[in-house]
Parts: sequence; structure tokens; C-alpha cells
Amino acid sequence: MRKFSRLKGLFNMSIEDSSTYTLGSFFIALASIFIVGKIVSSLFVKYKQPEVLGELIAGVLLGIVGLIPLYGEVGYHFFHLLAEVGVAILLFEIGLETDLNDLIKVGLPSLIVAAIGVIAPFFLGYYTIYVLADLNFIKFSSEGSLFLLALTVAATLTATSVGITARVLSELKKLNQTESKIILGAAVIDDVLGLIILAVVSGIIASTGGTGSDFSISISSIILISAKAFGFLILAIIIGNLFTKRLFIFVHGLKARGSLLLGALAYTFIFAYLAKLAGLAPIIGAFAAGLLLAKTHQKDLIEDRLKPVADVFIPIFFIMVGSAVDVSSFNPFIKENIAVIILAVVLFIVAIIGKLVSGLGAYNLNVNKLVIGIGMIPRGEVGLIFASMGLLSGVLSKSEYSAVTIMVMLTTFIAPPLLYKFFRD
Amino acid sequence: MRKFSRLKGLFNMSIEDSSTYTLGSFFIALASIFIVGKIVSSLFVKYKQPEVLGELIAGVLLGIVGLIPLYGEVGYHFFHLLAEVGVAILLFEIGLETDLNDLIKVGLPSLIVAAIGVIAPFFLGYYTIYVLADLNFIKFSSEGSLFLLALTVAATLTATSVGITARVLSELKKLNQTESKIILGAAVIDDVLGLIILAVVSGIIASTGGTGSDFSISISSIILISAKAFGFLILAIIIGNLFTKRLFIFVHGLKARGSLLLGALAYTFIFAYLAKLAGLAPIIGAFAAGLLLAKTHQKDLIEDRLKPVADVFIPIFFIMVGSAVDVSSFNPFIKENIAVIILAVVLFIVAIIGKLVSGLGAYNLNVNKLVIGIGMIPRGEVGLIFASMGLLSGVLSKSEYSAVTIMVMLTTFIAPPLLYKFFRD
Repeated sequence: MRKFSRLKGLFNMSIEDSSTYTLGSFFIALASIFIVGKIVSSLFVKYKQPEVLGELIAGVLLGIVGLIPLYGEVGYHFFHLLAEVGVAILLFEIGLETDLNDLIKVGLPSLIVAAIGVIAPFFLGYYTIYVLADLNFIKFSSEGSLFLLALTVAATLTATSVGITARVLSELKKLNQTESKIILGAAVIDDVLGLIILAVVSGIIASTGGTGSDFSISISSIILISAKAFGFLILAIIIGNLFTKRLFIFVHGLKARGSLLLGALAYTFIFAYLAKLAGLAPIIGAFAAGLLLAKTHQKDLIEDRLKPVADVFIPIFFIMVGSAVDVSSFNPFIKENIAVIILAVVLFIVAIIGKLVSGLGAYNLNVNKLVIGIGMIPRGEVGLIFASMGLLSGVLSKSEYSAVTIMVMLTTFIAPPLLYKFFRD
Repeated sequence: MRKFSRLKGLFNMSIEDSSTYTLGSFFIALASIFIVGKIVSSLFVKYKQPEVLGELIAGVLLGIVGLIPLYGEVGYHFFHLLAEVGVAILLFEIGLETDLNDLIKVGLPSLIVAAIGVIAPFFLGYYTIYVLADLNFIKFSSEGSLFLLALTVAATLTATSVGITARVLSELKKLNQTESKIILGAAVIDDVLGLIILAVVSGIIASTGGTGSDFSISISSIILISAKAFGFLILAIIIGNLFTKRLFIFVHGLKARGSLLLGALAYTFIFAYLAKLAGLAPIIGAFAAGLLLAKTHQKDLIEDRLKPVADVFIPIFFIMVGSAVDVSSFNPFIKENIAVIILAVVLFIVAIIGKLVSGLGAYNLNVNKLVIGIGMIPRGEVGLIFASMGLLSGVLSKSEYSAVTIMVMLTTFIAPPLLYKFFRD
């Protein structure tokens, strides 16, 4: 009967449409994403604004209309997976346009930028929570719970989401500038640092049962996680370098339609999988795949054929990010929202300052440090993981959780126009 | 909390991986589909065999290894939806290369071919079941149930699945030949006829409660279904003709990256949706969208940009079709399989003869009638719907159901090599 249900699923006109989504609504949702996305972002391009901001706003609009959740849980998962493919393709495309040697050259400034960009917002955020608690703005049951709250909020402020910035740098055709390379390198390192903080913070929360007292965290587990993450990146690049050129001479020789393109995508997805296995974000693997394929003879052909595929998948990611914004929580006419909005704005300011100073990490280079700082502003993935971890463990109240997610969203929306303003010729 | 779970889903590294699929296994499955698909089909191309047959067989292999069901129910639905996008893009691409006027020119022969291709296999199948019952090969509880069994099996033999044939015609670069146009036209008409038969047969089964006695079926409902289906096609073409050219001048003027391509895809998906609304298969709508866009000034640009996207999505459909084959039911060393295989082979022969004679419908044209007949052989979508309907209502036993699905699969696998043999220069 399993095979039977698979067949029935494959050949779509099921007799009764009792499934949680229908093929029809799925097609309509996909069409809406494309149409609304392109119309709004075309307006942005026309007025020399970031295309990606147009897609984010298109996503907000589609979220309000309710078109994206329309087709139920399965449909939602479907678009989530498409979005993941989209952001993986984006980072692959960025990697393909990046010279690995250039990236290694800016390794040290990237490392310093990443470190400042983690440490500064962490401590700023941590003390902000204590200041707000002193002002009686934040309620807490014990010193332990206040400590955990400060720790969790601080952690959400540390992680950089590279997707938004990478897309804007690509739009501005600035990927070859030193600033861009420092940002990309720092974002990759940041992902590893974020992983370590995640291990530490979740370890502390777990060991105290959410009360914040008497915690312990194993140093060896932190070292293990760090080694796995850095080890993956270094090994992937070294081993990949050994066989990738020859592999793609073989792939290019395959005679079936689209072999080179599908070979490149499969390569990307495998690296995304390996990155996830190492505990990193899949996009870090996709980026590494791009770096490796940038050195093959087929690079230009791959880039050319990838473009239309990227055009299809990438906007889905940004529209999904936009659609996740809960607009109702921004409504200042609802009384409960005011405290949330104030907290969100305070955290937002802290989030911006904390990352802006990271640009100073490139202190001995003749680069635009403001641009580097702005490029590090967008949070996203890891920040939201911290927030959801805090909510699930009871460390964050529901309104504190809302404030954190609003902060994350605001950083996502502010970075593209700022980059356009300060990094355009 | 709904928004929360959506955010957590979007930013993928969920804290506990309790979901039924993981992002990692999804990436691996996609990579496997691409790699196995391209390697096997490249071998087929190398030995001048149909590429699509290579993809079907790659699907069978992936199905045996268990890679496709690996990632659980959600993942399965995901690949099913990707497959639907793939076959919609295929028919859109075929439509884009087809001249509507040419199609109208072969309207009458197409209609005759479609009619013969429905009537001949229906009556052949119907009487085959009675003959097999006379030979005591088929068990039945009453005359009524035998009648229903014959009716259902006959119905499964009528429907043509255009995907396989269209792909092979495209591979052979024969889409501009009259034979191809007759096949495409007949397949579209066949979809409508299949819909009418579906209404009649399901009405009969429902009204008799699966016993086959004392049935009634409303003529008005049959007329309504036919009118809706034909009406959709005619209206879509007429209304679409009024605005499509101007619409795509506007779309081409949009400045966001990939607007033209995404506009064309959105147009396709909307037509697929409307077709589904009219009760037709979505691919018929996608085909109509292609026919309409074939007349725009942007046709060549769209075709060019669509190609890599088609390369990504189309193989997924054929691999999913292949992966649905239950290889264990072909094992002749399992005793219960022998009767199933014999029934399947008998039905397969009937299925081939019934469609081969349909080529004679183009009696007054100087065309290769054998090729037309072969082009009509593949069953698929609608055939399997009949079969699953029969199984659910108890009209078909599980082994009869297996035999019918094997017959459908065999027609799918036999058509590409036959077309290669008889329709190549």
C-alpha cells in the first residue's frame, strides 16, 4: 500500500483532495511569489534601491495576505525547502565569483572583524539587559533567571547572516572589492563562532534547568565543536582542490542534457550536506563548493547556466524571510505591543552599534570600515535559533521573544539600503 | 506560536531534529537524483538511446536503493511537487516550440486519433477481461462485479500520458513534424475524453456501491464536465491571445533580475491552476501557456532562459516516475507474482494494440501512422487514477491492481525506444 500511495501522489489528480495542500494552490502560491516579488523589486530597482529589499517587502505583503501559509503545513515545508535551495545557490554563486586566494589574503582582518563583531554585541547586549532590569523595565524572578536572560539576548545579537549582505554586494557588483572579501570571510568565521556560543549557552541553560544557578559546561565539548567546524572548512577546501578540476572535466564530458549544471548543483548540495554534518550552516558548504568550482575550466559555463536557475530559487528565500514577519506585533495601537517595540528598538540599536564597530577590525587596511560594519549587521538564522531556544526553555517570555525577532528582522531590512547608500560609487 | 514555528522552520538549524525529514537528507536526495540521473542518461545518450529512458531507469535504481523515500512523508511530497513543476515546465517548453495554427490544422486527425485511441483499448480491454474470466483465470463473485472489473480495467487502458512522448519528440528534434503535432493534439483531446470516462465510470461504481447492479449516471453531469474542459481550453486560447503579447512587453520592461523568466513561469503556473480548476490535468494548462507565449516577441529569450531551469526540474519528474516502480512485484520467483505478471503482460499487449491502431485515424494524411500509434502508447496519470479508484472501491483486488500498475509502467518504458527506432532519420 505504500507504493500505492506513492503512485497516487505522483500522478496528481487524487480522487478526493483530502490532503492538506492541493496542487492547484501550490501553483498559485508559486506564481504569486514570482509575480509580487518581481513587481515590487522592479519598483525598487527603478528607484535605485536594493532589489533584495523589494523581495523582502514582497514577502511581508504575501505574508499579510496570507498567501504563503495558505496551502497548509506540507506546502509550507515545501517553500521552506525551496528557500533553503535558494540561499544555497546564492552562496554557491557568490563563492563562484570569489577568488579563494584573495579570501585567504584577508584572513586576518576577517578574523578580527568576526571576533569584534561577536564580542562587542555580546557584551553590549548583556549589559543592556542588566541596565533595563535596573530601570525596572524588565521583570525577572531571580538573579539566576536574569543572568540567563542577559546571556540569551546577548547570544542572539552575535551571529551574522551573510545571505542579505552577499546579495546586495552582488547587486552592487562589488564582490571583487576588499571590503566584500573581508565581510564574506568574517561571516564564515562568524558562523563557526556562533556555533561555539550556541554550544556554550545551550549547555549553560540545560545544566541549570533554566534557573541560571550552578552551571557547568565542558571545555572539551567546545573544543570538539570548534575543531569539527574549522576542520570541515579546511579539509573541504584541501581535499576538494585535489579532485574537483578532474571531476568537472569528466562531468563536462557527460552527454545528457544539462549535465554540467546539474553536476555543479549536486556538488553544491553535497557540500551543504557535509557542512550540516559538521554542525555548520549548509550555506557555508555551498560557499565552499563555489570557491572550489571557481578554479575549474568550466567556471564561466557553470556561471552562465546557473543564472536563470538562481533567478528562480533565490527570490524564494528572501520572500520567505519577509513573509515570516509578524506585522501585527508592530502595531503600536495594541497596548501590549508598546513594551515589546521599545525593547526591540533598544536591542536593534545595540545590534547595529555592536556590528558597526566590528569594521574597525580592518584597522590597518585602506578600506571603508563603515561598509564592513554595515555588511555585518543582518542577523537571521543563528540569532533566531538562540531566540527560539530561549523561548522553549522558558528563559525568554513570549514578549521578549517577540522583541528579539523584531530586532532580527529590522537588522535584515536596514542593511540593504545602508549598503546602497555607503557602498555605491 | 504559529509565526514562531514558521521562523524556526525557515532558519533551518532547529534545535532538535524531530521533524520527519532533515535538511541534510533532502540535499543528499536531490544530489543523488541529479548525479544518478545524469550518469545513467548520459550512458543512454552515448549509445544513441532515449535520454528519458535513462532517467526512468535511474529512478528505478534510486527507488530500489530506497533513496527517494528516505526522507519521510514531507520529503516525499516535496519531490512530488518538484516533479509536478518539472512536467509542467516540460509541457510549457513543448508548447513554446509548437505553432498553434499548425495544431489547429491537424485538429480533425488529432480528434480521430484520440477517439480511436480511447475506444479501441476500452473495448479490447473490456472483452479481454470477459475472456480471461471464461478461462477461469479471473475470479469474480457475481456478474455485476465482473462487469465493474471489466469496466475499470478498460478505463485504465484509455488514457494517454503525453509527458514521455513529448520529451522523446523533443530529444529527436521532431516537434515540427506533422506526426508530432497530431500526437500532441490527440493527447490534449484524450485528456478531456479521459475526464469524461472518469466521470462515467466513477459514477457507475458509486451508484452501485461496487456491486455492479442497478446503476444510473446523469447525462447532464457528463455534459457539464465536457463543457468545462473543452470550454477552458478554447477560452484560455482566445482570451489569452487578447492580452498575452502586451502583457509580456510589460513583463520584459520590468527591471528586476530574471523578470521575464519568472513572468513566463508564473504565467505557466496560473494556466496550470486554471486547468486544474476546470478538472483537467495541470500540464494541459501549461501546454496552452506555451502555445500562447510562442506568439510573443520574447519567445526566443524565454526559451533560452528557460532551458537551464528545465534541465533542473524535468529530470525530477521522470526519476520520480521510475522510482514509483515496485520492482519486487516483477520477481517471478515469488509464486503469487506469476498470475499478476501474466495478467499484466496480457493487459500490456492489449494496451499496445489498442493505441497502435489509433494511428490509423490519420488515414488521409501522408504521415507515419505507426509513429503516431507508438506516441499514444504511454499511460500514466489518468490510468493510475482509475486503478487506484478501483482498488479503493474494492472493484480491483490487490493483485489485479498490481497488474494494472505494471501494465502502465511497461507502456511508459516501451514507448521511448520504439519511438527512437521508428521515428529517427
